[in-house]
Amino acid sequence: MPESRESKFAAVEAALGYSFSGEIKIGGNYVSVVRHGDLAFVSGQVPRVGSEVVVTGSVGAEVSVARAQLAAKICTMRALALLRQELGSLESISRILRVTVFVQSAPGFTQQSEVADGASEVLYSILGAAGVHTRTSVGVTQLPKNAAVELDLIAAVE
Amino acid sequence: MPESRESKFAAVEAALGYSFSGEIKIGGNYVSVVRHGDLAFVSGQVPRVGSEVVVTGSVGAEVSVARAQLAAKICTMRALALLRQELGSLESISRILRVTVFVQSAPGFTQQSEVADGASEVLYSILGAAGVHTRTSVGVTQLPKNAAVELDLIAAVE
Amino acid sequence: MPESRESKFAAVEAALGYSFSGEIKIGGNYVSVVRHGDLAFVSGQVPRVGSEVVVTGSVGAEVSVARAQLAAKICTMRALALLRQELGSLESISRILRVTVFVQSAPGFTQQSEVADGASEVLYSILGAAGVHTRTSVGVTQLPKNAAVELDLIAAVE
Repeated sequence: MPESRESKFAAVEAALGYSFSGEIKIGGNYVSVVRHGDLAFVSGQVPRVGSEVVVTGSVGAEVSVARAQLAAKICTMRALALLRQELGSLESISRILRVTVFVQSAPGFTQQSEVADGASEVLYSILGAAGVHTRTSVGVTQLPKNAAVELDLIAAVE
Repeated sequence: MPESRESKFAAVEAALGYSFSGEIKIGGNYVSVVRHGDLAFVSGQVPRVGSEVVVTGSVGAEVSVARAQLAAKICTMRALALLRQELGSLESISRILRVTVFVQSAPGFTQQSEVADGASEVLYSILGAAGVHTRTSVGVTQLPKNAAVELDLIAAVE
Repeated sequence: MPESRESKFAAVEAALGYSFSGEIKIGGNYVSVVRHGDLAFVSGQVPRVGSEVVVTGSVGAEVSVARAQLAAKICTMRALALLRQELGSLESISRILRVTVFVQSAPGFTQQSEVADGASEVLYSILGAAGVHTRTSVGVTQLPKNAAVELDLIAAVE
């Protein structure tokens, strides 16, 4: 029997050492997920676990590529947790269409793609072929809460 | 009788002290709005009123959070004015799906979400539940015309 | 007989002095194009020809506006070449819906729109009315491989 996405999600949670199982709330006049037809848009996610942003600072200066990849993985797990919360199950994701990865970058740091590989790896490991997406990675000056990485995505859903 | 979106739009115009009623033109081989099926894409808007960008500079240095929120509101009003011009009425907007807010940020400025709240507030106050959207806010080095904020969006339309 | 998009594409290739005809491969758990219904998402493209990124550095410092426009044109040609590879023909593109142009910008450089005009010009010259799109241009700190410009897009396809 093939392993379910739920059990793969739990395996990534365990590997990262963080839980993404509680309800994720955000404030303001916006929401984490909007569905329209068979599309689902997910708001920009920072590497927050509970109330703490766990990877902050500028990649290439105080944050290493490995830590930034961890940040990208956490952002991705949050996005998946939000989709699961909205859809009821990870099985309802038919395809990840677009991922945009913003990396808080020190001057001269050019490995934004390598950082984004952390996100791509999580999507593929949990969703398989449905997790193979298009991607844009850029290096920005600053991100909300001094997050090292921010990621948003558009998914096709059942 | 519920207040129309048009009158709410006029109320925000009055509160901001700027008019968004004339035709908005842009040059070049691109346009402000493209519709495809029930989706409408709106080009990146800077806080321009008439021919002037009214909030310029780097947020966290020469631009305060309050001024940057004003900039985000103006960008949003322009986006709504463009949708109205394209669709004939604000009533034809079924949902704001995605808003991306780029904030020209000084080093160390991390309140991009607070700046973007200006945009979210305008969308909700004019469109109500249809204005509740997903959002991504990032801090960038520079924006066209030295604008303090730039915002684009995707809407579902009738 | 109207000139085909293929011959216009070849004319732009000749004008730029670069070929975009071989298969374009990327690594990782993501892909260059994902289709969903009549939408096609194209991953962020840098001005790479073969294995070399041909325009690198910060626009407004070591890269001129003219060189950056060339970079935007090359990114656009790559995106079109990828769509052609996926769809079998450029004729299957019904409309370019959204283009986002990230410009690696020196402090104080504010001509991101002028840089993006390079992309818009190529889209219009090859696709005609179907190439008229919405656009967002921003200035960022850094881009992957030190690219001067990165561009992604969403197209409607047959």
